[in-house]
Amino acid sequence: MDEQTALGLIGDRLAAAGDDCAVVDGQVITTDMLHERTDFPAGTTRYTAGWRAVGASLSDVAAMGATATAAVAVYAAPEFDGTELGAFLDGATAVCDAVGAEYVGGDLDGHDEFTVATTALGETDDPVRRSGAEPGDALCVTGSLGRTAAAIRLFDRGDIEAANELFRFTPRVAAGRALSPYASAMLDSSDGLARSVHQLVGASDCGAALTGPLPIDERVDEVAEDDADRRELGVFFGEDFELVCAIPEAELGPARDVTHCRLHRVGTVTESGVTHDGDPLPDRGYSH
Amino acid sequence: MDEQTALGLIGDRLAAAGDDCAVVDGQVITTDMLHERTDFPAGTTRYTAGWRAVGASLSDVAAMGATATAAVAVYAAPEFDGTELGAFLDGATAVCDAVGAEYVGGDLDGHDEFTVATTALGETDDPVRRSGAEPGDALCVTGSLGRTAAAIRLFDRGDIEAANELFRFTPRVAAGRALSPYASAMLDSSDGLARSVHQLVGASDCGAALTGPLPIDERVDEVAEDDADRRELGVFFGEDFELVCAIPEAELGPARDVTHCRLHRVGTVTESGVTHDGDPLPDRGYSH
Repeated sequence: MDEQTALGLIGDRLAAAGDDCAVVDGQVITTDMLHERTDFPAGTTRYTAGWRAVGASLSDVAAMGATATAAVAVYAAPEFDGTELGAFLDGATAVCDAVGAEYVGGDLDGHDEFTVATTALGETDDPVRRSGAEPGDALCVTGSLGRTAAAIRLFDRGDIEAANELFRFTPRVAAGRALSPYASAMLDSSDGLARSVHQLVGASDCGAALTGPLPIDERVDEVAEDDADRRELGVFFGEDFELVCAIPEAELGPARDVTHCRLHRVGTVTESGVTHDGDPLPDRGYSH
Repeated sequence: MDEQTALGLIGDRLAAAGDDCAVVDGQVITTDMLHERTDFPAGTTRYTAGWRAVGASLSDVAAMGATATAAVAVYAAPEFDGTELGAFLDGATAVCDAVGAEYVGGDLDGHDEFTVATTALGETDDPVRRSGAEPGDALCVTGSLGRTAAAIRLFDRGDIEAANELFRFTPRVAAGRALSPYASAMLDSSDGLARSVHQLVGASDCGAALTGPLPIDERVDEVAEDDADRRELGVFFGEDFELVCAIPEAELGPARDVTHCRLHRVGTVTESGVTHDGDPLPDRGYSH
C-alpha cells in the first residue's frame, strides 16, 4: 500500500494518531524521520540537517497551536565525526532556541545512510486539529510557498550556501500560538499546499475553493523554468513547513492582528470539492 | 570517533543529556533507533519488532524510576504492507499496555533498510540518575541476564517462535517505580551488565566489586558452547533491558520487599576499579 493508505491504517487504529501530533494529557508529541537520499541533498551541512530535521517536528507542534517545549533526535550515520556531530547539535539547538524549546539530546546509531529521527513535544490545553473547518471559513497560509523546492534547485546548481540558508526555516510556533484561538482547523504544509488543503478539508468533511494568485516565494521565480514549473514547485512540491488553516470569516481580522508573519488568504472552505480558480486542484504532493 | 566518545560529546554539550532519559520539567524523554541489520535477526516478526523497539525506549523510562505515559515510533521500510504494519502496531500497543503507557502513533518513512525510531515519555518528580551511587551501596540487577543473546542463538538455529518470544521483554517500569525511592543510581542493562556497571560507577565517580555467580538466564545455558561462551553471552552481550542499580545497604531489604521481580545483588559499590571475584571486569559490551 502507499504511504497515504498506510497512514490511514494507523489513524484508524490509534485514537491519538492522524493529526500533526498525537495529544496526550495536554501535551502534544510528534516524530519524524529524514534521511540522506530523500531529504538532505548533496551539500546540506550537518548544521542545516540538525536545524531542519528538528524543525520539521517543531513545525508539527506549531500546527497544533501548542507551545514547543523540548526536542530529541537520533543521529544515525556510518561513522561519527566530532565536527559533523557538533555542527548537527548546534543546528538542532539553534532551531529549538528560535522557538523557545529546549534541545535535550538523543541517541546515536550506526547506519549505512545518514538518517535523523526527531521527536518534539509541546503543550496546549486546546489543540487545533485538522478536523474543525466549516464551510464559509477563510482558508489561509502563513509565509510563502516553495522555499524548499527553490533550495533544492540551488543545491543542484551548486549554490550551496544560499541553498542551506533557504533549507533552514523557522518553525511557525509563534504563529501557531497566535492563531490557535481563531483557527477552526490547522496543519502544516509539509506535503505541499495542494495535499495539505485536501487533508484539512478531508478531515473536516468539507471542500475548498482557492482563488487568485497563491503566495509563491519570490525565490521560486528565480529558479522556475516556466509558469507550469513555478506552480509545481510552489503548490505541489511541499516540505515548506508553513501553516495552512481555516479561520471563521469574522475572526480573520483579529487573527491577522496578532499573527506576526504574513497570513495570506488563499480561498474559502466550501461544502465539497477542492478547486483553484474553478479548476480541480489535484490531491498530489510530497510523499515521504 | 567511536560511539561511546560521541555520546560523551553530546553529554558534555547538553545539560539534559547523558542519562537513560533527558529530564524536562518533571518529564523524562528518550529516543532510540533499531534497524534490521543489527537489531532484528531474520525471523523477527513485525509484532516482535514493534514490541521490542518501543520496549527499548520504555526501558529507558523505567531506568529513571518514572511512570511510562506514552510512546511513538517511526516505521521505516522499503514498502508498506498492511499486514506487517498492523502486526507492528499490535506489538507496539501491547508493550505499552504491559506497562500502563499509551501507544499514540508516529510516522512512516520509505527507507531501504527496515528501521524503527522510537520515543517514550514518562513522568517523575524525582528521577533516579546514573550518578548517585556511593561506596558501600549494594549493586543489584533485576531479572536475569542473557535473554537476548540466547534469542539470537535461537534465531540462528531456526527456532523462530521461541526466539521471538524471548525477544519480547516486559520493560521494568514497575520495578523502576518500586526501586526509585531506594536506588541511589540506576540505568538499564542495554549495553550489557559489564558496560552498564562501568557506566554507573563512572557517572558516580566510584568503583564496583562484583562477587559470586551472576544471574545468567537458564536459557543461556541451553545455547552456550562452554563456560566462557556463557559468560560472554550473559555479561557482555547486552540488549537485555534489565535494571542495574545501587541501593544503600540499609535500604536493600525494604527495596526487595516492594520489587515484584527478582532483585539479585551482584556486588558492592567501591571507591574505584571494577572487578568480578577480584579480577578486572573489562568495560566491554554492546555498541549500537
